[in-house]
Amino acid sequence: MKIEILAVGSELLTPFFLDTNSLYLTQRLNDLGLDVSKKIVVGDDRDNLLNCIQAALAEADLLLIMGGLGPTGDDITRDVCAEALGKKLVFREDILQKIEERFKRRGRDMPLSNTKQAYIIEGAEAFENKNGTAPGQWLVQGQTRVVLLPGPPRELKPMFEAGIWPKLQEWQKGTMVRKTLKITGLTESEVEGCISGLYPASRDLRLTILASPGQIEIHLTSFATEDWGVAELKIESLALEIGRQLEDHIFSSSGEELEAVVGRLLGEQKRTLATAESCTGGLLAARITNVPGSSEYFLEGFITYSNRAKNLRLDVPLELITSHGAVSYEAARAMAEGVRAKAEADFGLAVTGIAGPTGGTPEKPVGLVYTALAWDGGVDVEKNLFLGQREQVKFQSSQKALDMLRRVLQKTERMS
Amino acid sequence: MKIEILAVGSELLTPFFLDTNSLYLTQRLNDLGLDVSKKIVVGDDRDNLLNCIQAALAEADLLLIMGGLGPTGDDITRDVCAEALGKKLVFREDILQKIEERFKRRGRDMPLSNTKQAYIIEGAEAFENKNGTAPGQWLVQGQTRVVLLPGPPRELKPMFEAGIWPKLQEWQKGTMVRKTLKITGLTESEVEGCISGLYPASRDLRLTILASPGQIEIHLTSFATEDWGVAELKIESLALEIGRQLEDHIFSSSGEELEAVVGRLLGEQKRTLATAESCTGGLLAARITNVPGSSEYFLEGFITYSNRAKNLRLDVPLELITSHGAVSYEAARAMAEGVRAKAEADFGLAVTGIAGPTGGTPEKPVGLVYTALAWDGGVDVEKNLFLGQREQVKFQSSQKALDMLRRVLQKTERMS
Repeated sequence: MKIEILAVGSELLTPFFLDTNSLYLTQRLNDLGLDVSKKIVVGDDRDNLLNCIQAALAEADLLLIMGGLGPTGDDITRDVCAEALGKKLVFREDILQKIEERFKRRGRDMPLSNTKQAYIIEGAEAFENKNGTAPGQWLVQGQTRVVLLPGPPRELKPMFEAGIWPKLQEWQKGTMVRKTLKITGLTESEVEGCISGLYPASRDLRLTILASPGQIEIHLTSFATEDWGVAELKIESLALEIGRQLEDHIFSSSGEELEAVVGRLLGEQKRTLATAESCTGGLLAARITNVPGSSEYFLEGFITYSNRAKNLRLDVPLELITSHGAVSYEAARAMAEGVRAKAEADFGLAVTGIAGPTGGTPEKPVGLVYTALAWDGGVDVEKNLFLGQREQVKFQSSQKALDMLRRVLQKTERMS
Repeated sequence: MKIEILAVGSELLTPFFLDTNSLYLTQRLNDLGLDVSKKIVVGDDRDNLLNCIQAALAEADLLLIMGGLGPTGDDITRDVCAEALGKKLVFREDILQKIEERFKRRGRDMPLSNTKQAYIIEGAEAFENKNGTAPGQWLVQGQTRVVLLPGPPRELKPMFEAGIWPKLQEWQKGTMVRKTLKITGLTESEVEGCISGLYPASRDLRLTILASPGQIEIHLTSFATEDWGVAELKIESLALEIGRQLEDHIFSSSGEELEAVVGRLLGEQKRTLATAESCTGGLLAARITNVPGSSEYFLEGFITYSNRAKNLRLDVPLELITSHGAVSYEAARAMAEGVRAKAEADFGLAVTGIAGPTGGTPEKPVGLVYTALAWDGGVDVEKNLFLGQREQVKFQSSQKALDMLRRVLQKTERMS
């Protein structure tokens, strides 16, 4: 079964836009156990588009074409597709009425140019567009199913779910289950070293690593022709083996981000948090407060960029800063203890470091970051050296601070 | 002149990865006045890849193929490309030596599997890979130039710049100039309404709008066969006309983000800033401190999530919160004045609102956000109603707050 996705639009051939619809379509096709063989992007150019569609018709069992169904002169997908298929366009009064009604509901008259959207390729089934004017189309030519979809994601997705997805079920070869393991505290090569013996040999069980500074994701997909339970069993047993190798470096196996894991644990344990940030400049608190309901456990945060602020807000002694520096083990420790006391929180989390690009010295280079956690069990301070640009250093610093808190919270969870 | 970009790699046919190399290649080709006609993604599958390359050889004047040049069994681009061209692979002792040396420098022996990377298609010119082991290749078949590049961006980009770019100059049709106007405070349709009469008719001058919540970008590209000055003149005159329509809603025409514009103005005027955030939870300060050198003007920030913190840190009277609510005109005003006084800063910038998804009421719905700016000229408070998810509301809130500050700073700049 050969599936091709063809995205039409000159803007997709500029340096500014990527075709992201195909990720969504791939995901939904994968859910049926179907793989995509090829993805193509062409502009709003008759000859190129005609060539592409003709070549795809000769090859593909399913051809998904998206974009170029709008009302303007640039939108030629409908016409060129009909030409490639050797079919006529037929006018559909019922579709025109729907488009006119859509405009009327918004108190406007339909521009004449929208009339062309009421034309359907001869023999095609039309799909209503709940979020726009261009209907979708589905037709069969020889052994190829051809699908026309509007380009805007908010029009394409609901139409695909309601109209196309049910028609593809007949090809379902089985069930697919997905699982994502999220890891921090290890490099990509460390993760690969740990799990190199676990790469599945079967095409039905797949492992993909997605790495970025501070976070590694292992994406597992399992496909079974039998039933859901078989696919589930295979993926869980692989995840278990990976878990044995990576242990508590895995912070999530359900899709949760680190700030959500920490937030959930804080909520469950009814404990509160306050933050003191220097080099992360608010990023740590911003991530914590991205979690809905974080006001339950997050009390407040201080961004103490200046030494004056570190002293006045967090009671970090000015002598300490003079003797050890604002970026030091001692300063991080004092910031964590200070914010915990000031906010009357269970946990005080602090970060101080040099995010770059300037401010580094041979003794204290760019990327040197101290992270500290104060709680009723004491104070932990970690010295880190992160690589990357300013924003990457900031992200990795916030990630490390959150991970220190996660480990303490999970220890409590295990002991209770 | 037909240019096609072919990305090879099964991971690019999963729901997880997009081919981003093609954006970079497109940009560099555009710089020479060259357009991309088609982009294709195929997996590491011999038959599919062979078909794709053969079809492209029949069509394209320039075919850029990337990915699949690694040492593993999956990496078949080199072999399949030779097959499509009807050519042999020839072993190059000098390339093998370079690969071996690369491993030796890292204190390791070269694995035997890397030997295949020393094979080059008969008649091809090889390009050294400074950041990896797979060399690039360039050859001419009939009227098609075929280029093989490694997939990882950090290997592809330097190789393209050093080896491929100079060879493409012969096709340069002229010069291309780009300009990006960044806008906030207007919706996409408001922007389109303002500039609908300004869409250039010529293919040599292009206008593309890229919209996201809180920010609209207008990308202009101008191409001229004559010289740089002509392209520059065309783009500047279009930018000027757009500027007349959109006036001070344009915050940047040089690529700067809003936080960088604000940072530059604060630096130039030697004025300082402190922030008080509730619903943005640190995002406002995190954006301000993303700008290198922001410690020059950013003193400190308070994330006063709890009412206690608003009172203790910013002197917002508890009675005020009781009578008007923490999300109110009065609270925002008091927060801005409070943080300005506490931090002894020239500007106090404050945000309080309901980011959602919970916490909204009929009177104070999700998305209601007050932004306030206190300075020696008084206090400005704005009431906003933002649409979107929690993170989008947070971003738009920070954007609005920064924009209020930008407008005051630019007024000062104009008056001085």
